Amino acid sequence: MNNERPLILVSNDDGYQAKGINELIRVLMEFGDVVAVAPHTGRSGKGCAITSEVPIKVWKVNEEPGLKVYACTGTPCDCVKVAFESVLDRRPSMVVGGINHGDNSAVNAHYSGTMGVVIEGCMKEVPSVAFSLCSHDADADFSATLPVIRNIVAQVLKNSLPIGSCLNVNFPDSQSYAGVKVCRQACGQWINEWAPLKHPNGSDWYWLTGSFQCKDSDADCDRVALDNNYVTITPTKIDFTDYSLLEELKNWNL
Amino acid sequence: MNNERPLILVSNDDGYQAKGINELIRVLMEFGDVVAVAPHTGRSGKGCAITSEVPIKVWKVNEEPGLKVYACTGTPCDCVKVAFESVLDRRPSMVVGGINHGDNSAVNAHYSGTMGVVIEGCMKEVPSVAFSLCSHDADADFSATLPVIRNIVAQVLKNSLPIGSCLNVNFPDSQSYAGVKVCRQACGQWINEWAPLKHPNGSDWYWLTGSFQCKDSDADCDRVALDNNYVTITPTKIDFTDYSLLEELKNWNL
Repeated sequence: MNNERPLILVSNDDGYQAKGINELIRVLMEFGDVVAVAPHTGRSGKGCAITSEVPIKVWKVNEEPGLKVYACTGTPCDCVKVAFESVLDRRPSMVVGGINHGDNSAVNAHYSGTMGVVIEGCMKEVPSVAFSLCSHDADADFSATLPVIRNIVAQVLKNSLPIGSCLNVNFPDSQSYAGVKVCRQACGQWINEWAPLKHPNGSDWYWLTGSFQCKDSDADCDRVALDNNYVTITPTKIDFTDYSLLEELKNWNL
Repeated sequence: MNNERPLILVSNDDGYQAKGINELIRVLMEFGDVVAVAPHTGRSGKGCAITSEVPIKVWKVNEEPGLKVYACTGTPCDCVKVAFESVLDRRPSMVVGGINHGDNSAVNAHYSGTMGVVIEGCMKEVPSVAFSLCSHDADADFSATLPVIRNIVAQVLKNSLPIGSCLNVNFPDSQSYAGVKVCRQACGQWINEWAPLKHPNGSDWYWLTGSFQCKDSDADCDRVALDNNYVTITPTKIDFTDYSLLEELKNWNL
């Protein structure tokens, strides 16, 4: 690879064969050399999980000029961790997650393996951006996202990001956006989360399902802005200390 | 169970048979009825992971006056989610995670299944507290932690916590503490994270290992306070929006 071009590390939680990461790779290759280290199969909902009890395997699945793709049996965070230490030949200029097949706005950011990728990149002090489309369709149409991604990547390579912060970008499932909006994370929670089922032996099992109940009506929160057809950019910190509660707790009898 | 006593939900990431959760249950039973829904085996490092692709199983493993214990094949977050919807007969007054066998200060909070428990409890708008001891010993001595836990639980039941915030409490591996300190999350990162190994077939595998590099020297951050033999309480928010970056991004050409 050409050491003078920026190096961009990409990963996801849908696996290296997903349409979203492959569309993303083609955009990123316009900016630099790309190395993808991504789960060998779907790892949705893995958040910042890491694999501590069994070893993980990493192997190359594709190589062409300006691109190397590796599959990994670990979680999205593992992919980034192992890439930095054992795959990349130099420090990347950016870590990019996605394009996720599904919404990572609001509290979904906590469960998201795509966000796991960029939180891990951010811990490594590299500017990191997650891209997600609000469609779970494996054959989703990402074409409208690509010019926006191109602009955000260019801006981040130019301006960088503060150490300890990353970007969580979500796209409505639409072909024409109302605009791009910088947002805060919406408040809300998942409800009706389990569909019970009986095993043939009579034991109780549950499928995860549910619907998201947004408790926010502010046009500047990500979930509402997505409903209003905006692309949302939610700047996200590794430090999730609640500083106002910190002051209040000093008055407790602890 | 007696509906007039507070109900406390407890979970962990070391499994329902771990010493830490069983010591915690005995303290919590002083305050109310306790229901434990915990992984059937170790689930360390699962963060806020959820199980979306296979169903999970939940079954009762112990019942005595004021206590029910359930095992669950899911992650720590799954345990809390399924408890609220399919196990508890009323809304709990608190969700408690731990006592974890291992440090959950600094960025470890992102990877921690114990923190997954309380972030999930916090999303359900119930006061939630995680307790962790800085020792991975399966037979660790938790005795010094118990009076401090008793006081924190009493204070949280009395004062409650703001919706959207929870507490991450860590104990040094010590029998006599310098005190209890309200802290912010320390900055730092894991380094030297992978021990490579060769499979007998020649393929490349990696064990997760590493050491934590604290980049903070401030006596008020949790990792440094633990080193100084303080019990640390790090108030933690679900909303990890970076509000100062949010304002800065409005000047970008997005």
